[in-house]
Order: sequence, then C-alpha cells, then structure tokens
Amino acid sequence: MNTPIVLMIIDMQKGMSWPQAGVRNNLNAERDITELLAHWRGKNQPVVHVLHHSTEPDSLFWPEQEGAEPQEMFLPLENEKVIVKSVPDAFTYSNLEVWLNTQGIQRLVIVGVSTNNSVESTVRSAGNLGFKTYVVANGCFAFEKKDFDGEMRSAQEVHAMSLANLDGEYATVITQADALLLCKQ
Amino acid sequence: MNTPIVLMIIDMQKGMSWPQAGVRNNLNAERDITELLAHWRGKNQPVVHVLHHSTEPDSLFWPEQEGAEPQEMFLPLENEKVIVKSVPDAFTYSNLEVWLNTQGIQRLVIVGVSTNNSVESTVRSAGNLGFKTYVVANGCFAFEKKDFDGEMRSAQEVHAMSLANLDGEYATVITQADALLLCKQ
Repeated sequence: MNTPIVLMIIDMQKGMSWPQAGVRNNLNAERDITELLAHWRGKNQPVVHVLHHSTEPDSLFWPEQEGAEPQEMFLPLENEKVIVKSVPDAFTYSNLEVWLNTQGIQRLVIVGVSTNNSVESTVRSAGNLGFKTYVVANGCFAFEKKDFDGEMRSAQEVHAMSLANLDGEYATVITQADALLLCKQ
Repeated sequence: MNTPIVLMIIDMQKGMSWPQAGVRNNLNAERDITELLAHWRGKNQPVVHVLHHSTEPDSLFWPEQEGAEPQEMFLPLENEKVIVKSVPDAFTYSNLEVWLNTQGIQRLVIVGVSTNNSVESTVRSAGNLGFKTYVVANGCFAFEKKDFDGEMRSAQEVHAMSLANLDGEYATVITQADALLLCKQ
C-alpha cells in the first residue's frame, strides 16, 4: 500500500482573481485545480489549503475583507487541513511540517499562486526538508513583473523562470495528467 | 549602540570558480566580497561562512575533493561561524537561526552564489523568519540556464529575475557602497 499523497493549494483566495492582482498567465489554472481537487477528494487523499493573511491593511490579503476569503470552488471541507500564513512560505512558523510527518505524508503535489512567490518559497522549503515534491505547471500562475535590470517580464516568463529554478533541484515539475496519475497509484 | 550586522558568504567554494560550474555573470564578485569581508573584519562585525557539501559523489561540492573547499580568500577565521549544509537553504536542518538569535543578530548582509539557488533560498528563509535582510547585487552571481519553456536565459537574466523576486518581498537588494555603509553605522 502506498503512502498518502497530499494536494496542497496555495493562496487561491478571492483577491487573486481581481484585476488589481496583475496581468497573469495560465488562465485555466482554476479549472485545472478544481479538477485535481475533485479527483483527490474522490480518492480520499489528503488536501491542504494554504491561505495568506497579510499584515498590511492595504493588501488584497488583509484578513478583514473579501479578498482574503478562499475562492468558492476551493472552500475547505471540514476534514481538510487549513494553514493560515502571513509570509510566503507555508512552512515558516506553521505546524505544516509536523502535521505532514504525523500523517505519514512524504509526497506533496503543489498548485496555486504565485509561482515565483508563495508557491516557489513553499516548494523550496518542501524540497529542502526532504519531502518528495511535485509542482503542477498548469495549476500555478504568475504575474508580469520587471526584473532587477528594469526589463518587463511577461507573466509566462516569470512563471517559466521560477519553474526552472524548482525543477530537478527542489521538486519535479509535472503536467495535469501526471498529477492525476500520481493520485491513482 | 546598534545591534550587530552579519556578513553571510554563501557557497564561495573552489568548485564554483571552475569552468564546469557554467557561464556566469558578475565576474568581479570575488573582488567585491573580499572587500566586504576585510571591511567586516576591520569593524569587528560577525561573519558567517556557509559551505555546501553535496550528497552526490559526482558533484563539484562532494566533500571529499578540492571543489568543496573554501576559496583561499574566503577561508574562515577561527572566531567566525561556519555552517555546512547539504541543501540550498542554509537555515534548513542547521543551527543558523538559533545562533543568530543567541548572538542578538537581526540584520543580515548576504553575498555568494548562486543568486537563484542557495542565495535565493537562504534569503527567502531569512526574510520569512523576520530577519532584516540585505542582498548585495554585485556580490552574487548566477549561471546561464534554460527556463522551463526551453528558452536559454543569460546568467545576467537569471540573476536579475532572482533579485526581482527577492527585493521588497524578502529582502532589500543593495549596492557595494550601501553594504559598506551599513557596516559603518
């Protein structure tokens, strides 16, 4: 019998779907994450919902407003683990590592936003801590951003550079089909 | 009286100077780090040397060969802290966080290699943990690398994207002059 494999959904809150969040790539990520979530629930595999609560009142993630609420299609069920964080990395100052270990979970499939910020920080830590970590490329997205030399990088460029940092070093970057198959095993 | 400010030098080992390491940017980083190290020592401020020891025998950082040794100009002095790590993030499975706290160190100036790997992981964790963290742009370097869409990115592009991920979110990216000034305060 295989050990459990967790689906971790990062920062898919209402504010992330608002125009103020920025110009993004992977417009079908919500559909793909919804499919993965239904699949995971159907297989009775564990799900972790990571929610960001900012410490800055003007943030889209300030907890006392709608932007911080989970998007409707990703509302946690009662038996699902929720991690509330105030920094990008879901492992920092949370009980996530301990919880995964007590559940016997060694394999993580990670989706959410943004690829180069909360997703990348959490995936780096997961890999550093020794978890077998997968990132679903189509289930993450990023926002356009200037690089430090002042050159505007498209959301897809930011996303692709971030995945290249992660793949083979901290995690394995996979497709939707790979992810569905992992949860069937 | 100000609290101490630490200079953290990441992975400046002999293997990083070999051609096998790849095509890099910031060819003057060694000179600039040497200047910072002399300045820090002159001001009696703390220095942390982070050394990578790979778990893969064919790595440039496999501990039982010259590539893993510190470069001559960055050899730690007896009173300086050394962290040996086997994953990119110097905080993972090390006593670095505890050591900084027991020394009363809240401010970190980080240099080394590579910008988008060990430097970025360590800086992300430092920022997430709440340390006031600075990255000296000219004191770090990266290597050319394909992004996940298969496009070759120059070392400077990789470096500039990584610094953009860090600046304002996990750290403040600064110049050599800024760093020298920080240690004078």
